[in-house]
This record gives sequence, C-alpha cells and structure tokens, in this order.
Amino acid sequence: MYEGPVQDLIDELGRLPGVGPKSAQRIAFHLLAAEPADIGRLQDALQKVKEGVVFCDVCGNVSAETTCRICRDTRRDVTLICVVEEPKDVLAVERTREFKGRYHVLGGALDPLSGVGPDQLRIRQLLQRIGNQVDGKDVAEIIIATDPNTEGEATATYLVRMLRDFPGLTVTRLASGLPMGGDLEFADELTLGRAMSGRRVV
Amino acid sequence: MYEGPVQDLIDELGRLPGVGPKSAQRIAFHLLAAEPADIGRLQDALQKVKEGVVFCDVCGNVSAETTCRICRDTRRDVTLICVVEEPKDVLAVERTREFKGRYHVLGGALDPLSGVGPDQLRIRQLLQRIGNQVDGKDVAEIIIATDPNTEGEATATYLVRMLRDFPGLTVTRLASGLPMGGDLEFADELTLGRAMSGRRVV
Repeated sequence: MYEGPVQDLIDELGRLPGVGPKSAQRIAFHLLAAEPADIGRLQDALQKVKEGVVFCDVCGNVSAETTCRICRDTRRDVTLICVVEEPKDVLAVERTREFKGRYHVLGGALDPLSGVGPDQLRIRQLLQRIGNQVDGKDVAEIIIATDPNTEGEATATYLVRMLRDFPGLTVTRLASGLPMGGDLEFADELTLGRAMSGRRVV
Repeated sequence: MYEGPVQDLIDELGRLPGVGPKSAQRIAFHLLAAEPADIGRLQDALQKVKEGVVFCDVCGNVSAETTCRICRDTRRDVTLICVVEEPKDVLAVERTREFKGRYHVLGGALDPLSGVGPDQLRIRQLLQRIGNQVDGKDVAEIIIATDPNTEGEATATYLVRMLRDFPGLTVTRLASGLPMGGDLEFADELTLGRAMSGRRVV
C-alpha cells in the first residue's frame, strides 16, 4: 500500500482494538505531521507500560505504588468491599461517588470456554481478605458488581456460593432494572423482567 | 482517574484523532496485557516515523526512497499527471486500477481561513514539472482529482486558472455524479444536479 515506515506504522496501529484500517491510516498521517515531542511522549508512555505496571497488592487495581490510592485511604470503609471484574469498573463505580468502601478487582469473569476458571481470577485473594481483619475490623459486606451478562452472572453465582459460609458476612449484588433516562417501551424483555421482579415499595 | 503510567498512556492515546476516552482506555488495557514484543514493534514504527518520513522529490507522496515507486516505474505514462490533495488519495486512485499515469500530491487544499494559500501547497513544483520534459516527452494532460468539497473545488478552480496558459496542455477534472450502487431517491440535490448537468450520450 504505502511505502516504508508509514505502512509499518499503519499496520501496527491497525492491530490495536477498535482501530480499523481507515482509523489507522488517519492516525498515522496525524503522527506524520505531529511534533517529534508529541510522538516522544506517546513512546515514553508505551515504554513505561511495557516495563510493567504495578498492581495493588490488596485489591488488584492498577496502581502507581504497591498499595493503591484507594486501599491507602484510611477514610474509606474497610468493612465494605465492592468486587468488580476490571480496573475500568472501579473507575465506573468511583464516578458515581456513591461508594465509600474498598474494591477487589477479579481480573475478569468466569468463562470456561476461554479457559478462565476460578484459579485465573483473584478469588483466592478475596477469600483471604475476608478472613483477615483490617485495623481490627472484619469485612461486613461484599457487594458483587460483576457485569450483568452471562460471564458476570456466572461469576456472581460462584462468588455467592463461596462466600455464604463466612459467618456474619452480608453478600449483595447490584440492582438490575431499567436504566435511568430510558424509555419503558424500548427496554428489552430481560431488563424489564428484572425490573419487575426487583420492584420496591416506595 | 487511573494511577501512574496507565493514565499517562490513556492521555497520550486520547490525543490521537478519532480516539475518544473510551477507546483510549480500551487500547491502554489491551497494551497492558500485550506481549512486550508487540509494544516494541509499535514503538519502533513510531520511532521511524519520528525520525522523518521521506517524501518523493517528484510527486510529494510518502516514499521509502528519494523518488517513490510510482515515479520510478518507467511503464507508467509520464505525460499524464493526476493531481491529488493527500497521499491517501493516491492510494484511493491506485485501487481503481484505472490510472496508469503519474501523480502530484499537493499536500492539502486551499483553505485561506486555516492559513493554507497557494504557497503552502506544492503548486509551484507542479508548474515546474509541467515546464520540464521527462524522457523527451511533454506533459499532455493534468487530471485534477481534488476532493469534491468547498476547499477541493476552490483548489481545482485555482489550478485551472494557473494551467490554462500552458500550450498544448489538457486539463480535466474527475466527473461528479451519482455514486455507483446508490439510490436516485437518496441523492442530495447538489449531486443529482451535477449528475444532470454532466449527463452523457449513451
């Protein structure tokens, strides 16, 4: 197609998720016209990620230090742990500003067809966290916030089974129902069914 | 948002054209899980582009050597020059397999509001090419293939004015009309009007 380095860059960019051939070409020509310093910053960022990103010892979230900002924050409730699949889910929950506990990042969801079983997720570490006191306090509640899809639901079911033997531990799951700002008419049957069965007294 | 190197990478990726915050995050987490060798290849490609891409001395297209593959190809007609805005337009015309002449890449289109005048484009070089013989042959036809939008049309009009003083030179413009596979009903008025005024005897 193109000659030399430009085509190499287009090929490499095209391997990234969500970047098609047209986008790759557009980005390559943007970089061609960019300042060397701008490309340098992108290279540096790649280098640092290549050298290895630190994950929090406690919760498994991406972190700048061995223990992440949230796990270091003593104002946050250590008795409340929200279990999510990925670091980006931590960000999604944080954006709500509704949650003042800690997190536990599983690193995915159960998906036997792709070879992801309980041992591939950080479930053992979660059980250890629940077994150990932090600042003399026991974990009181686990909020399971896996995705509301097949893998996420399977993971939630598995976790509930593992966690029900802990005395005095409450296990909850995020509510399913109609998204805010939505339209009843356009809700799918499954969502509307969940909203119906999960109805609350007002 | 995230801590440390991951956020830096998301920020840098988010500066690329067509990459929004969500895509940047998705690409960053993909790279986090990628093999260091894969990231290395992307870094190398960036490095080569940063060190400078060669543009063809003759046509201005991106090139691996000082003269590009097309301008070196002696089987291609030197008397026929297709004038395009960008290197990607060369690729688009090449894909048609209809054109066996040479190219001239302007490097953009006239856009006075963005500070792009005739001097910012490779128009002087085009006039020089037309003035000089290649292999003892004069340029016979210039096909103006700028984009069919305001800037492209303005550039085409300007070029026609510059080129009409060359004796024996034919200047043509790509046909405007209905796109193939389209539907008359859904054509915009401007396109349908152009198709009407450009109608041909069959």
